[in-house]
Amino acid sequence: MDADRAPLRVPILGLSALELRERIASGALRAVDLAHACLEQIGAMESEIQAWAWLDSDFVLEQARALDRYRSTGRPLGPLHGLPVGIKDIINTRRIPTENGTPLDAGRVPVVDAFVVERLRAAGAIIMGKTVTTELAFLHPSRTRNPRAPRHTPGGSSSGSAAAVAASMVPLAIGTQTGGSVIRPAAYCGIVGYKPTFGAIPRTGILTQAPSLDTVGVFARSVEDAAMLAEVLFGHSPADPASQPAPPPRLLKTAASAPPVRPMFAFVRPPGWDDADEQTMLAMRELTEYLGEYCFEAPLPRLFAEAPTIRERINSAEMAKNYAHYERRGRDQLSDTILAAMDAGKAISAPGYIAALDWPEVLNAGLDEIFRRCDAILTPATPTPAPAGIKSTGSSIFNGLWTLCGTPAVTLPLLENENGLPIGVQLVGRRGEDARLLRTARWLAAEVLEDRG
Amino acid sequence: MDADRAPLRVPILGLSALELRERIASGALRAVDLAHACLEQIGAMESEIQAWAWLDSDFVLEQARALDRYRSTGRPLGPLHGLPVGIKDIINTRRIPTENGTPLDAGRVPVVDAFVVERLRAAGAIIMGKTVTTELAFLHPSRTRNPRAPRHTPGGSSSGSAAAVAASMVPLAIGTQTGGSVIRPAAYCGIVGYKPTFGAIPRTGILTQAPSLDTVGVFARSVEDAAMLAEVLFGHSPADPASQPAPPPRLLKTAASAPPVRPMFAFVRPPGWDDADEQTMLAMRELTEYLGEYCFEAPLPRLFAEAPTIRERINSAEMAKNYAHYERRGRDQLSDTILAAMDAGKAISAPGYIAALDWPEVLNAGLDEIFRRCDAILTPATPTPAPAGIKSTGSSIFNGLWTLCGTPAVTLPLLENENGLPIGVQLVGRRGEDARLLRTARWLAAEVLEDRG
Repeated sequence: MDADRAPLRVPILGLSALELRERIASGALRAVDLAHACLEQIGAMESEIQAWAWLDSDFVLEQARALDRYRSTGRPLGPLHGLPVGIKDIINTRRIPTENGTPLDAGRVPVVDAFVVERLRAAGAIIMGKTVTTELAFLHPSRTRNPRAPRHTPGGSSSGSAAAVAASMVPLAIGTQTGGSVIRPAAYCGIVGYKPTFGAIPRTGILTQAPSLDTVGVFARSVEDAAMLAEVLFGHSPADPASQPAPPPRLLKTAASAPPVRPMFAFVRPPGWDDADEQTMLAMRELTEYLGEYCFEAPLPRLFAEAPTIRERINSAEMAKNYAHYERRGRDQLSDTILAAMDAGKAISAPGYIAALDWPEVLNAGLDEIFRRCDAILTPATPTPAPAGIKSTGSSIFNGLWTLCGTPAVTLPLLENENGLPIGVQLVGRRGEDARLLRTARWLAAEVLEDRG
Repeated sequence: MDADRAPLRVPILGLSALELRERIASGALRAVDLAHACLEQIGAMESEIQAWAWLDSDFVLEQARALDRYRSTGRPLGPLHGLPVGIKDIINTRRIPTENGTPLDAGRVPVVDAFVVERLRAAGAIIMGKTVTTELAFLHPSRTRNPRAPRHTPGGSSSGSAAAVAASMVPLAIGTQTGGSVIRPAAYCGIVGYKPTFGAIPRTGILTQAPSLDTVGVFARSVEDAAMLAEVLFGHSPADPASQPAPPPRLLKTAASAPPVRPMFAFVRPPGWDDADEQTMLAMRELTEYLGEYCFEAPLPRLFAEAPTIRERINSAEMAKNYAHYERRGRDQLSDTILAAMDAGKAISAPGYIAALDWPEVLNAGLDEIFRRCDAILTPATPTPAPAGIKSTGSSIFNGLWTLCGTPAVTLPLLENENGLPIGVQLVGRRGEDARLLRTARWLAAEVLEDRG
């Protein structure tokens, strides 16, 4: 919906992924033409944006040509047939470098695709390339810049995935969130980011930072596009203990449908609310006033103030364990930021860590009280728009609670500050109720944009 | 099979649980007569053995009379109809004190039955009473004495359950094992102990010491009796994350059946082998020689030497978290033994603890190499028979590995030292292959006893 902000060499890049899929399926558009258009856009923008860790136009065009040939046989098409997807460089891709944002993994080439990459291939998607991640998907920033404001950070850690979608280089991309690494960069870059319920998308074949928190998410330019991509990725992998056998969700169909009654929203001030700048607070207030009687404020119980500390405790303890081999191989090649967090993780006691793992259930019991009275929680995606500079990826204080709770969250690019920087509106649903959350989100986006239109 | 050792007031107490069940089902024996016999045996032995934490003969007889009335209606009987079962006092029983072996829980009366107690009631068992546990199911000994040698420890922590079965006070009892708390007391008391695959019996409603290790197990005087009881307890409880939905196993039927070919055994010297006394080593050697070509020695890979430390790390870290509230309520009422272990748990780092949790998978991969070539691992249940005195519950060094690995284990009272103290023969199977392990165990017990007879 903000694609008009990026200079488009080719008009088809202004279409949604859903529209592109229909054109390719009908024969109105060839996969190879779409691939060319994306490559052209990348060629024009990449030197400024730096979204890609690995890209090979021959590899892209080969896939596109094969998909066009396949289509010409008349056989049924996969749900993402011909759509280019960017893949965060912590997600294993067979025979394609996957360097995890650290020189310690330079030249690392996996022999097996991650679960999500297998799913993409089976769905007919084009593996566009690998998008830049911050160092090991943690806080130390990457070189990527925000397409909406190139002197600003795109956020992290899925910096390249968010920037590539925001710059119309690809219609879709995949990232991960352990703190705020999907919702925050999506909000900063003015696109849709969706972090599903914890465990809904298996993490098999993806760098493990903190397995109690790591969540796969998607980037798109509309809620329906995000739903279409996520639907392909939901599933069960026995190798991921967080993933459970479950019937495939009908995310796209539900997201595209009309809510049975007008949705009700609960406005929530998350822990760290005082970090929010005035324009973000003001924009959120305008939105809640606009929603009127369909939005009420729901105060969080006091113990929610502990959630950021608890999340950080789990993150740093598990990271210290899972990245110990990086430290052994080359502590001097890790950033001070990550080393400090790992050292903090080592200082956490085992009983303190185990006690932290009890919190999500307690917090979700508190959230359930709110979800009983609303369709979604409404809350800002970030305390401020993308900060200037690329020395920091900004604050994830408004994201960590939802990562810790494992609740699905989506950010919508509905607001802006006075300099035109996007302000993300975050909607949060009950665990497992992803389809309903996406339906509510699509409704809200349509309502607000129609009203403006 | 060793019931003849205890002075029996009533001959029916010499029958197996399986035989008792059949007599009650056929009408040859009333539940109330069996209950009276057990109460009489308890009355005669309890002052010496001290197996019971809570017992009320009226409560027992009421259940027995109700079961007899139920039988007279001709309706189908539960699989444990009329059989008295002793229940370790860390297992919640509705409206019956459950004091967890600590003065800090004196007078504690749960309002809900544990999953296993619900299952027992539904199966028509008689809840005989609560059996003595060591303090919070850890190492500090209880007052209970070994029926086979009253000046010796019965082992712990399920001291009362093992002693009650060994003294023919009940045909069946339930306990738990976090280190060696089922296999060790069963071996010391000369009865059958069976610790199923980790997670097979839900722990909902049972004191949590170390949830990565805590396993429910059973005590009986024959393998078939143990299989019959365990079969009733296997199942799924959503409240226990270790429990998984699975089809009900046919433990009894399989245990009672003949192995398709003569079983093969792998003799294993577990970590701590040097702690074994000469008579235990000698008795085991005689048994392996007796098995001849059907027993080979399987050396454990070197990394198994770490297993005891790893298990202890997990146990003390998780115990420090789960018993923290006891410490807050009354550190001065906890034993030095448990306080030292909890303090050690607090000193473990979170990453070290998390790393320890990876070990069971690694160790099981090593065990799988052995299980490929045998039906069961054969190994002593304890390094020595029950030590003299009741100041210690003895060593669990030969049990912890199997608890850590989550493999099913059973101990058989097949051997004795020269003073007539029982030496348990421990058989271990592959995770999930409980029925096969019990079949192998029943075969071995029959083979050895028949040969002696």
